[in-house]
Amino acid sequence: MQIGMVGLGKMGGNMAERLRRGGHDVVGYDRDPAVSDVASLKELVDRLQAPRAVWVMVPAGAPTQATVEELGELLSPGDIVVDGGNSHYVDDQKHGAELAAKEIGFVDCGVSGGVWGLENGYALMTGGSAADIERLRPIFETLKPPGEDGFVHAGQIGAGHFAKMVHNGVEYGMMQAFAEGWELLEASDIVTDVPGAFKSWRTGTVIRSWLLDLLVRALEEDQDLSELRGYAQDSGEGRWTVQAAVEHAVPLPVITAALYARFASRQEDSPAMKVVAALRNQFGGHAVTARAGEVEKGADSPGADVAPPVEAQK
Amino acid sequence: MQIGMVGLGKMGGNMAERLRRGGHDVVGYDRDPAVSDVASLKELVDRLQAPRAVWVMVPAGAPTQATVEELGELLSPGDIVVDGGNSHYVDDQKHGAELAAKEIGFVDCGVSGGVWGLENGYALMTGGSAADIERLRPIFETLKPPGEDGFVHAGQIGAGHFAKMVHNGVEYGMMQAFAEGWELLEASDIVTDVPGAFKSWRTGTVIRSWLLDLLVRALEEDQDLSELRGYAQDSGEGRWTVQAAVEHAVPLPVITAALYARFASRQEDSPAMKVVAALRNQFGGHAVTARAGEVEKGADSPGADVAPPVEAQK
Amino acid sequence: MQIGMVGLGKMGGNMAERLRRGGHDVVGYDRDPAVSDVASLKELVDRLQAPRAVWVMVPAGAPTQATVEELGELLSPGDIVVDGGNSHYVDDQKHGAELAAKEIGFVDCGVSGGVWGLENGYALMTGGSAADIERLRPIFETLKPPGEDGFVHAGQIGAGHFAKMVHNGVEYGMMQAFAEGWELLEASDIVTDVPGAFKSWRTGTVIRSWLLDLLVRALEEDQDLSELRGYAQDSGEGRWTVQAAVEHAVPLPVITAALYARFASRQEDSPAMKVVAALRNQFGGHAVTARAGEVEKGADSPGADVAPPVEAQK
Amino acid sequence: MQIGMVGLGKMGGNMAERLRRGGHDVVGYDRDPAVSDVASLKELVDRLQAPRAVWVMVPAGAPTQATVEELGELLSPGDIVVDGGNSHYVDDQKHGAELAAKEIGFVDCGVSGGVWGLENGYALMTGGSAADIERLRPIFETLKPPGEDGFVHAGQIGAGHFAKMVHNGVEYGMMQAFAEGWELLEASDIVTDVPGAFKSWRTGTVIRSWLLDLLVRALEEDQDLSELRGYAQDSGEGRWTVQAAVEHAVPLPVITAALYARFASRQEDSPAMKVVAALRNQFGGHAVTARAGEVEKGADSPGADVAPPVEAQK
Repeated sequence: MQIGMVGLGKMGGNMAERLRRGGHDVVGYDRDPAVSDVASLKELVDRLQAPRAVWVMVPAGAPTQATVEELGELLSPGDIVVDGGNSHYVDDQKHGAELAAKEIGFVDCGVSGGVWGLENGYALMTGGSAADIERLRPIFETLKPPGEDGFVHAGQIGAGHFAKMVHNGVEYGMMQAFAEGWELLEASDIVTDVPGAFKSWRTGTVIRSWLLDLLVRALEEDQDLSELRGYAQDSGEGRWTVQAAVEHAVPLPVITAALYARFASRQEDSPAMKVVAALRNQFGGHAVTARAGEVEKGADSPGADVAPPVEAQK
Repeated sequence: MQIGMVGLGKMGGNMAERLRRGGHDVVGYDRDPAVSDVASLKELVDRLQAPRAVWVMVPAGAPTQATVEELGELLSPGDIVVDGGNSHYVDDQKHGAELAAKEIGFVDCGVSGGVWGLENGYALMTGGSAADIERLRPIFETLKPPGEDGFVHAGQIGAGHFAKMVHNGVEYGMMQAFAEGWELLEASDIVTDVPGAFKSWRTGTVIRSWLLDLLVRALEEDQDLSELRGYAQDSGEGRWTVQAAVEHAVPLPVITAALYARFASRQEDSPAMKVVAALRNQFGGHAVTARAGEVEKGADSPGADVAPPVEAQK
Repeated sequence: MQIGMVGLGKMGGNMAERLRRGGHDVVGYDRDPAVSDVASLKELVDRLQAPRAVWVMVPAGAPTQATVEELGELLSPGDIVVDGGNSHYVDDQKHGAELAAKEIGFVDCGVSGGVWGLENGYALMTGGSAADIERLRPIFETLKPPGEDGFVHAGQIGAGHFAKMVHNGVEYGMMQAFAEGWELLEASDIVTDVPGAFKSWRTGTVIRSWLLDLLVRALEEDQDLSELRGYAQDSGEGRWTVQAAVEHAVPLPVITAALYARFASRQEDSPAMKVVAALRNQFGGHAVTARAGEVEKGADSPGADVAPPVEAQK
Repeated sequence: MQIGMVGLGKMGGNMAERLRRGGHDVVGYDRDPAVSDVASLKELVDRLQAPRAVWVMVPAGAPTQATVEELGELLSPGDIVVDGGNSHYVDDQKHGAELAAKEIGFVDCGVSGGVWGLENGYALMTGGSAADIERLRPIFETLKPPGEDGFVHAGQIGAGHFAKMVHNGVEYGMMQAFAEGWELLEASDIVTDVPGAFKSWRTGTVIRSWLLDLLVRALEEDQDLSELRGYAQDSGEGRWTVQAAVEHAVPLPVITAALYARFASRQEDSPAMKVVAALRNQFGGHAVTARAGEVEKGADSPGADVAPPVEAQK
C-alpha cells in the first residue's frame, strides 16, 4: 500500500527501505533534502492518495508534537497518522484526541529492532482502534519479523507505547542483573575466568538471552571492560516506567533500582553520600578524647560514636 | 571413561544415562536399591579401578558433606571427587582441603539444565586444578551441550559453584524484571492484551530470552495467572549471592530486591508494615479534634499529623 | 493582623484558634455552617479589609484548585492567598501564575504538627516572594513553635510544598528503617525483649527521635503489634517525592523502597510474584522424571531446573 | 563494686572514668603502660577479688577473641566476663559457650553513646542469663544514662550485640533517608534555602531527631557540604544486619539500600555500570547507518537499538 514516512534517519530510513523491499509505495519526507522525496510535509500529503497513511518517525517530545500538529492541519478526514517514535503514552492520548476531533485516525506504535531491523524485521507494539490497526496491517506485516511473534495490538491509543515503555523497563532490570553478576564475579578472588563463565551460560542455562549474547561479545572485545567508564544514560522510557508505576501504586523495586543505578553512574560524587559523610563526622563531635587529648573529627566508623573506637589490647 | 555416580535422582539419574549413551562406564549408587548398581558406597569404590573418579550428585549441605567425608575414608590417593550438587562455594573449599590432605583430588561443578539436560546437555561451571579438570574432560565433554559454550573452568576450587551461584542471582533479577513488567502492564487500563505484548517481544527485541519464552508459555496456559498464588521459594544460591556481595562490599540492588520480593511473598502479613501502621496510628494521637470532639486514632494519611486532614470546602 | 481562614476542619480550625489566641483577627469560612463565621467565600472576602490575606486550608487537588480559582475572582489586586494544604508544588506554580496575572500575591506553606500544633505550634515551610512572606510574618510567627526553628522561607513559589514533600519522603524512609529493624528483631530467636530494646534506644543513641518515641508508645500499647495489620496507605507527598526524583535524575533508593513497601502492603497477593511462581513452574517442565515417571510441575526450587532436585543419599 | 576494665582507649577509658566517678573500684588494663593500672591481664586478674567481673572493651574480632581466650585461662569458676565491644552476636555465642565450659559467666553488651557517654551515660543493650545481668547491675546502673531508658536486658547471650547491630542498621536507613532528602532538595531549582529547610524541621515535625540536629550542625559549618567527598565507610554491624536478615528470610530493602549506597560511594567507577555501558555500546552494533554510512558504536540511548535515534524533523 501507499504510505508517507516522515523522518528518514537511521530508523525511518531503514523502515522505508524495508517497506519498499516489501512492495509498498513509500513517499519519504526528511528535513534533509538529500534524503527526502519531497520538499515539505505539505508536498508529502499532496503526493499521497486519500485516504492517506502517514508514519511519523521523529524524536519524541516537541518534534513529534510539531509534526503531528502540522499533519493535523494538512490531512483530511479519513486519513491516519502512526507515531512510531518513542513517545510517552500520555502524549499519544493527547495526539489521538486532537486528530480524532478532525476525524483523522491515530495509531501509536512502539518499535524495537534497531540496526538489525532492516534485515530481520522490527518488533511492533501498537495501540489504537481495531479498524485503524486493520487498515495498516499490510504495513505492519512487512515491517515485523517473520513468524507469529513480533507484533501486538496491545490495546487502545497509547497501549503500544505503554507496552514498549514497559519492555524498556524490563530491559533495564535485565541489564542491571547481568551487570551486578559481573561485578560480583570480578570481585571474587576464586573465579579467574569471568568472560568464560558468561560464555558458558549461553547454552543450557536459564539466563540465556540476547543480552547475554551481547555481553559475551563485549567481553570478547575487552575482557575486563577496562576501556569503558561505568557511565550510562537513561532514556525517557525508564523514567516513564517508574512514574507510571508510582501513579498505579505498583512496586517496581528491580526496575527502579536499575534506573537509579544509571542516575548514580553519572554523578561525579554522590550528594547524598556527602550527607552520610557529614553525619559521620558529627559523630566524632568536637570532644576531647580521654587518652590523648586530640580532637577527633570524622570518625572512621559509626562505631566511633555508637560503640566507639576502642584500642587494640593485649 | 569409568566414573562412579552417587545419587541417581532426577538429576544424577539423567546424567548417568547421558554418560552411558556417550559410551562411558558408569557405576551408580543410590540409597534406593531399586535404581542402584551397588549396595553401598564402599562397593561402589571397590567396583571402580584406580585412579577412580566419583561424581557426587546429592543435596547440598549435610548430605553432600556426609558423602564427601565417607568417600574420603574409602578412596585412595590419586582418586578424584566431583561435587555436582548445589553446594556453597565455602563448603567446596573445606571439602577440597580435607581431601587434599589425603591426596585425593576435588572438583566442584555447578550444573544447569534441569529436565532438558538429558537430551540437550548440561551447562557446567567447574572449579579446581587444571590437572583435575583435564582428567575429567571426557566426562564434561559428554555432559555438556554440543558447541563451544556450556562449559567453563572458572577458577580454583569453589569457582564452579561461585559462578553457578552468581548465575542464579542474575536469574533472580531477570525473573523479577519480567514480573514487575507484567504487574505494571496488568495495572494499566490501556493495555488490554498483556499476554500478546509478551508474545510480541519474543522476536526482534532486546529482552528476548528463554525466560521470556517460558513466561509466554505460562501465559498461554493461564492468561492472567489467576490460578497461581504470588508465592515464591528461594534457594540457597540467591541468599549466598547476597551474602557474598556484602562480604565483598559489592552493591547488588537488583538481585537483592529480587530476593527480598521472594521473602515478602511468603509472608501472610508484613511485620515491618505493622510498624508503619502503628506509627501512623500514633500520628493521630489521642488528641481531641477541634471540631467534633471525637478521638481520632489511626489517621488515614501521614498528612494526618504532618499537615493533617483538612475539610473539603466551598 | 486580620486574616481569612478557608477550611475549619481539624487543621484549619486549630490554626484559626491558635491565631486568635495570638491576638489575630480571624474570619473563618467552612462549608459547614456550624463552624463557619460567614456564609460564603464572597462574604469572607467582603468581611476582610484590603489588602486582604486569605489562608486556604482545604484538601489538595480539586478542592484547593476550586477555592483558589474562586478567590481569584473575588479578591483584588494587592490581596494575598496562602495555600497551607498538602498541594503539589507544581500546582502552586500554576496557582501563583494565575493569581499573579490578577496582581494577587500567592504563598505556599507546608504545615507540619498535626493535633499537637494547636498547643505546640506548627512547623511551616514557605515559598513565595520575600515581600509576600514578610507581609504574612505576624501570622507565621504566631503559628510556628517558639524558638528559632520551625519556620523557613525555602524559596520561590512551590518551595514550601517542595520542602514539605521532601520532609515526608524522609519520614517514609525513617519509618521503614524502624519497621525493618523491628521485623528483624522479632525474627531473631535470641532477642526476647523487643519492646525493651526499642525503649532502651530512647536515650544516648544515634537513632533517638520522635518516631522512636511514638514506636515505643505503640509497643507499650500492643507489645507485638498483634492487633494490627501490616497495611499502610501512602499520601501524595511520597509519590511526588519519587516522581520529582525521577524527573531530576536523583537516585532515592531508600525513600522509594519505603514507598514501594506501602504499595505492596496493600496487595492481597503480589501480581509480580505470580509471574515468578509461574516461571518456576515452567522450570519443572512437562518432562517425565527419570526415576518414577511422574510429571513434575512446579519445582520447589529454581534448582529444580538449574541444578535440579537431587535425591538425598546414603 | 569492683571491676576490671580491659582496654582503656577512648571508650574504655571514659567508661572506667564514669564508673570511678560512680564510686566503683576499677582496675584498668591497657597494653599502653602509660594508661594501665597493671602490667598484664594476669596481674589484672590477680588484683581482683573473686568472684571477679572483667569488662572487655577492645576491637571486635581477633583482639576480642584473644582477650576472651586469655581471660578463660586466667579466671576462675564463678567469675564473669562482659564483652562491651562491637562483636558479632555469633562470636558471643561461641565465647559464652567456651567460658561456660569453665563455669565462667559471660554477658555481651552493645554500647552506644560515643564521646558524649562520659557525661551523659551510655545506652546499654545486654544479653546473658538473668543471674549474670543481675550481678552486674550496679555497673550498668552507673554506666547508663539517668532515667528509665538507655538499658535493656534483651535476651540470652548474643542478644545485646544483636540489638545493637539492628540499632546500627536502623541508623544506616535513617542517615540515608536524610541524605536522599538533601540531595533532592539540592537538585531542585525552586528551593533556595536548603539548610534553612532542615533547620525548620527541628521543631514540630515528624522527623525531628538527633540525626537531624547533627545534620543541621553540619550544614551550619558547611552549607552545601562542598568540603566533603561523598564517601562513607561502613562498619561490621551494617553488613551483619543484612546477613542476619538474609539468614532469617527477612526483607530489609531500606537498610540494605543504605548499606549498598555506602559500598558504591567508595568505588572510583562502578564495575556494574561498565557492563551497562558495554551492552549499550553493543546495541549500536557495528552496523552501517542508513544515511551517512558511518559506523555508530555506543548509542546514546537504549532507544538507539530499541527504537533507535530518529532524525529531528521539520
